Amino acid sequence: MNEGDNLRVRRLQEMMAQAGLDALICRLPENVLYLTDYWPIHGVSGAALRPQGKAILLVPVGEIDWTKPDWAEVVPFGWGLLGDDALYASYRKLLGKLGLSKAKVGIELGAEVVGASYRHAEPVVPAAPWQQMLAKVFPQAEWVDAVDLLQQAKLIKTAYDLGRMRVANEIAHVGIIAMLEQLTPKLTEAGASAVIEATIRANGPGYKGAKMVWAEAEVASGPHNTRLTSMLVPPTTRVIEEGDLVLVEMATVVDGYYSDLTYMAVAGEPNARQREVHNAVLAAQQAGAAQMKPGNPFSAADAVAREVLTAAGLGEYFIHGSGHGLGFRFHEATPSLAPGSSGLFEAGMVSSIEPGVYIPGFGGVRIEDNVAVGEDGPVFLSTPRQPW
Amino acid sequence: MNEGDNLRVRRLQEMMAQAGLDALICRLPENVLYLTDYWPIHGVSGAALRPQGKAILLVPVGEIDWTKPDWAEVVPFGWGLLGDDALYASYRKLLGKLGLSKAKVGIELGAEVVGASYRHAEPVVPAAPWQQMLAKVFPQAEWVDAVDLLQQAKLIKTAYDLGRMRVANEIAHVGIIAMLEQLTPKLTEAGASAVIEATIRANGPGYKGAKMVWAEAEVASGPHNTRLTSMLVPPTTRVIEEGDLVLVEMATVVDGYYSDLTYMAVAGEPNARQREVHNAVLAAQQAGAAQMKPGNPFSAADAVAREVLTAAGLGEYFIHGSGHGLGFRFHEATPSLAPGSSGLFEAGMVSSIEPGVYIPGFGGVRIEDNVAVGEDGPVFLSTPRQPW
Repeated sequence: MNEGDNLRVRRLQEMMAQAGLDALICRLPENVLYLTDYWPIHGVSGAALRPQGKAILLVPVGEIDWTKPDWAEVVPFGWGLLGDDALYASYRKLLGKLGLSKAKVGIELGAEVVGASYRHAEPVVPAAPWQQMLAKVFPQAEWVDAVDLLQQAKLIKTAYDLGRMRVANEIAHVGIIAMLEQLTPKLTEAGASAVIEATIRANGPGYKGAKMVWAEAEVASGPHNTRLTSMLVPPTTRVIEEGDLVLVEMATVVDGYYSDLTYMAVAGEPNARQREVHNAVLAAQQAGAAQMKPGNPFSAADAVAREVLTAAGLGEYFIHGSGHGLGFRFHEATPSLAPGSSGLFEAGMVSSIEPGVYIPGFGGVRIEDNVAVGEDGPVFLSTPRQPW
Repeated sequence: MNEGDNLRVRRLQEMMAQAGLDALICRLPENVLYLTDYWPIHGVSGAALRPQGKAILLVPVGEIDWTKPDWAEVVPFGWGLLGDDALYASYRKLLGKLGLSKAKVGIELGAEVVGASYRHAEPVVPAAPWQQMLAKVFPQAEWVDAVDLLQQAKLIKTAYDLGRMRVANEIAHVGIIAMLEQLTPKLTEAGASAVIEATIRANGPGYKGAKMVWAEAEVASGPHNTRLTSMLVPPTTRVIEEGDLVLVEMATVVDGYYSDLTYMAVAGEPNARQREVHNAVLAAQQAGAAQMKPGNPFSAADAVAREVLTAAGLGEYFIHGSGHGLGFRFHEATPSLAPGSSGLFEAGMVSSIEPGVYIPGFGGVRIEDNVAVGEDGPVFLSTPRQPW
């Protein structure tokens, strides 16, 4: 671990102390990651933290090789094999040793949208059985919802966090470049999605220490990206035609750190109108990003992007907000770059910046990068785009 | 819709009547699918069902094109665009029309493991805010946990359900065949995973009506598949070598219907010991599957598979159960094919059948197919394997 890597845990412990919490017990993959820098393979892991000391990571014994003992005390349990305790029997035994009777303990009650574990086929979330088990282990503890506190902590990224998000964006970029090189009028939307995802999946592991990598790329071409009301549509068998506008919406996750990018492309050469609209959206995006300085309101980034598109005669087609937080999940609630949004940028916040216009009979154009708020202004974590 | 397609909904309504439920309100993707045959793209959809009539599907307006109006009354709401209501404001308005005051309503409280939505980057699960919203809409309703009832309903698959699961398995098979053709000693584990996933992603949509398709393939080679305690490990940069045993664990999902397969391969020709162990595991698997007849105990399938491996001198290396339910999610709790498991097979149940042995210094061998219980015995939904 580099010096200062777990600054975020110390910061969280200060917030716990201020909130009078004796402990945090977490199950959501994004929060286990935050406390221990281990992204659960299966999602049955848990983590506990007290106001002092390292976190405790409860993890299936088969996942130990992927954990980071310098971040957390790793406590393995049997799971899924003959002779193991059932999951919650293991947890009861392990948590019982924490001695939290009469303690005030934060758990995750309110998080309805969550980051996935590596095993995205099977999300595991703490539900009623988890709360019932905890109540049996510590019948005198007071349970409070710690979702807001954890989201506040995750809102300010450390230099380490930003480095990991940059790696996720670099890996994502390799995938999009591979697809752009193969983008000829005969690739289907589904085929284009597959090229991006496979390039990331095959080449991500091993890149700058990345281990667990997957991506989801949704490719919408020609008439498909004029579905004005949809943020994301599954790719189809449609063959991409010469001159089609192609919109690629991507989630890339590397060891639990997310990138969220939208790329535009044209099969062949873009025509004059395509260039004009693309470059207007890009100008809006860059103007919005330029507002991401400490002390500026979130809404200013949206307003400035909206002004640029309005001046270009495209304001009416910009029907959504300009960006959202991300990092430990694909969407974090704060900052929200939208009209009427309250809040001020602080150094260490990260947002997508993604104005888009959806013009009937022409198509949709959205350009999305991931940008951190630096002390002196915006710092792109993804590769800024160029005008067409 | 073919005649009888939504037999499962009528069966569920009978179970609701027996349980005295006036309504079911569901948010988990697997249950929205079960009620409406629509697999949510984003996971913010919901479904309601009363003891008579079609289900009501609440869905973001941008997803309408993917829904099935013959299965459910489709009620769209705005989501994610400027001017929309927030998610729960939309839900309050829509659910308020159901008139469930003083009703007994089943909701999902106890489901900790869930099937993903198509957008696997971001699982959405009903948590405390959902329950609080429901309590506000119907302050006099009685809320009961309907997770068990829904799982009981899903346990018996209709002919329609089995057909969809067969399609998922056929698509999965195309992916594995593509990888086997490219399995030469220079492919990395991560590269092999990417070939399988990309083949499925590119070719799945359009196959027998499939629309939303993704796969997760985990490839463990040589020493990596001897990690005895692990059910699944992420693929690495390890280059697969001549003679390596290769274990492939796959989740494939097609419009919400899951396949769960494990394939074995060798780079080059298998040696005598590899053939011997592989064929013993295959014999155990086929003997276990042969027990999947109506009236037989779940535990018999496990016991017979275990006997075959014990007779082959491999019993001590078979350290997990022989199979689990699946279909509307990657793992369903019932049937459980394991020692001490209680319950009898009924026609329409589906289980994986997956004995495996993990021999130090040799490697792991597991063979997993998906098998339905037919009136007269087992019906393979996946392509049965051949001896080496």
